[in-house]
Amino acid sequence: MDLKTAEKYMRLAIKQAKRGADKTTPNPLVGCVITKNKKIVASGYHKQFGGPHAEIVALKKAGKKAEGATCYVTLEPCAYYGKTPPCVDTVIRSGVKELVCAAKDPNPLNRGRGLKILKQHGIIVSTGILKREAEALNTGFFRRMRRERPLTTLKLAQSLDGKIATNKGDSKWVSSPESRKLVQDLRKKHDAILIGINTLISDDPALTIRNSKRQPFKVIVDTKLKAPLTAKVFTSLSPGKTIIATTMRSSRIKERALRDKGARIIRVGSISNRVGLKALMKQLLLMGIGSVLVEGGGEIAASLLEKRFIDKLYLFIAPILIGGRGAPCSIGGDGVAKISQAVKLTDLKVKRIGKDLLVETDVYRDN
Amino acid sequence: MDLKTAEKYMRLAIKQAKRGADKTTPNPLVGCVITKNKKIVASGYHKQFGGPHAEIVALKKAGKKAEGATCYVTLEPCAYYGKTPPCVDTVIRSGVKELVCAAKDPNPLNRGRGLKILKQHGIIVSTGILKREAEALNTGFFRRMRRERPLTTLKLAQSLDGKIATNKGDSKWVSSPESRKLVQDLRKKHDAILIGINTLISDDPALTIRNSKRQPFKVIVDTKLKAPLTAKVFTSLSPGKTIIATTMRSSRIKERALRDKGARIIRVGSISNRVGLKALMKQLLLMGIGSVLVEGGGEIAASLLEKRFIDKLYLFIAPILIGGRGAPCSIGGDGVAKISQAVKLTDLKVKRIGKDLLVETDVYRDN
Repeated sequence: MDLKTAEKYMRLAIKQAKRGADKTTPNPLVGCVITKNKKIVASGYHKQFGGPHAEIVALKKAGKKAEGATCYVTLEPCAYYGKTPPCVDTVIRSGVKELVCAAKDPNPLNRGRGLKILKQHGIIVSTGILKREAEALNTGFFRRMRRERPLTTLKLAQSLDGKIATNKGDSKWVSSPESRKLVQDLRKKHDAILIGINTLISDDPALTIRNSKRQPFKVIVDTKLKAPLTAKVFTSLSPGKTIIATTMRSSRIKERALRDKGARIIRVGSISNRVGLKALMKQLLLMGIGSVLVEGGGEIAASLLEKRFIDKLYLFIAPILIGGRGAPCSIGGDGVAKISQAVKLTDLKVKRIGKDLLVETDVYRDN
Repeated sequence: MDLKTAEKYMRLAIKQAKRGADKTTPNPLVGCVITKNKKIVASGYHKQFGGPHAEIVALKKAGKKAEGATCYVTLEPCAYYGKTPPCVDTVIRSGVKELVCAAKDPNPLNRGRGLKILKQHGIIVSTGILKREAEALNTGFFRRMRRERPLTTLKLAQSLDGKIATNKGDSKWVSSPESRKLVQDLRKKHDAILIGINTLISDDPALTIRNSKRQPFKVIVDTKLKAPLTAKVFTSLSPGKTIIATTMRSSRIKERALRDKGARIIRVGSISNRVGLKALMKQLLLMGIGSVLVEGGGEIAASLLEKRFIDKLYLFIAPILIGGRGAPCSIGGDGVAKISQAVKLTDLKVKRIGKDLLVETDVYRDN
């Protein structure tokens, strides 16, 4: 294989990949071209999230012709079970002689494992052909996978003076019906909604998307497994799958009771007696959750910000003043000691949503 | 005097009043017409704050002709010393036979006293001629005087998450240089700047207008006379007059020390062991302070909001997140218990000032 030929076919594979634009998210765009005796015998692309991967589409089309052929694919074939079985199995069975890939899969579940398995099965493997162009197809995906956590959006709803509830805990409703409707749209754009245990207990939210078949995962960060068994998230009012993230030490008995309610319990290491957020976020990513919408409260928001785990902020500001030294703020935690250490935001977009203001901005863009 | 004639001349007096537009604030617009034998012998208006009142201008022009004349004036002549001596004295000395006025002076220092004195001196007095039109000249002034307190603007500078400082008390600088420049313009528009003792102690502000001869009064609300004698407001760095508002019970010795520093001490009754704000605000009005800019901190802001003593809000929001359960918020105090009791703001104006957002809005407009 000469480089020029390889680039020519890889360029075609990239072109194929682009056909899936906007339909594959949170999956990457991937394209595949199969050649034999300097002729293209098949091509394919990843059409939509949940559908077959590009190489599977192309190999199926190629059928018997794949034997002894060269497979050009823009991303390393997967070696793990996701929504579909591992692609490497199909590649091996197809009988291709050679596999040329542009970019290694940055997914921590794969990351070279796919290529290694192919090599072990006698397939000639090369990587890095038009790598830059192929990665440019999926900038967000690569960034996300390399940071080993889902793309994370923080949604806050506060009064003009930064309160999310009164000193007596009343929080219904800080924001306007129009803003709450927009939150529904935000939920649609994310694979999971994440809240802290205090928000579960105080607000008992359903965390659903109204009138939608697809429901996001509901992730509750619950160090001590305090989640009430009667919470709405465990009932038919809340059809999405509920995941409780806790530490290794919390009660096994409560775990069983929560499992009986249909929840999935994931245990991660604890940091300062709390759920280790880095481990949790990585775990969520490995579960196929590519994007998380954090909906409060102030403590979980503070912890995630401190860890620089927030990519985007949607701050709904209601035109009211609540006041109160003791009233909870949108961002709790310890906070910074010096103004110079504060999280600096640039390019604020300010919109009016009903009576509210919505401040939309990227956070920690260089992470 | 028939009503038609009276209205005719009063209309001319109102026309005179309007000539002072934008120059008399915080004083009202006032016009005066003097007639004798159905002929106008003189007219005048209040030209600018600090200058002679309308009736004085007109009477001076009329000279001897004022004897036996009728004086049409849009506002009751004053019977107290302000920036100028009481007008009633001049009216009496002028020899006018009759005084027709449109509106009684709502200033609690006057409010009918002027007319009463004129009557006692044998002048024929009538009021209410074109009252509505005359009051419409000075809507703000009437509203302000009737509520027995200065027009009060609250200025706050906070982070997006509602904090005015970090948990360690660092507050320099939350807002941008551009916002701080705009605060200078706000100071120019107010007769006094008011802060709480905590802000004096923690920030030690100079509270001045840079490059200006006119300096606002600086009012420090200081229940226990804790003001440090070394504070900037007592030095040449801060040329305006400093007023310390305290209760009846605070130290007379400290009072003397503060007086030696050039401060004026005013003592008002205390409410729940704090300076009674209603009494203080009335006192400031009686001192000729028509407008107050409140520049923090969170406790004084909360107290004034709770009393409904705030007319306008300028909220500077810096594009930073400070966080922290213990970090002070822009509005402290007890706050409301229910979201439904929160101060509701309408018609927010949102501007960008440098990197900051500025939310500008009326508060309690119906008071």
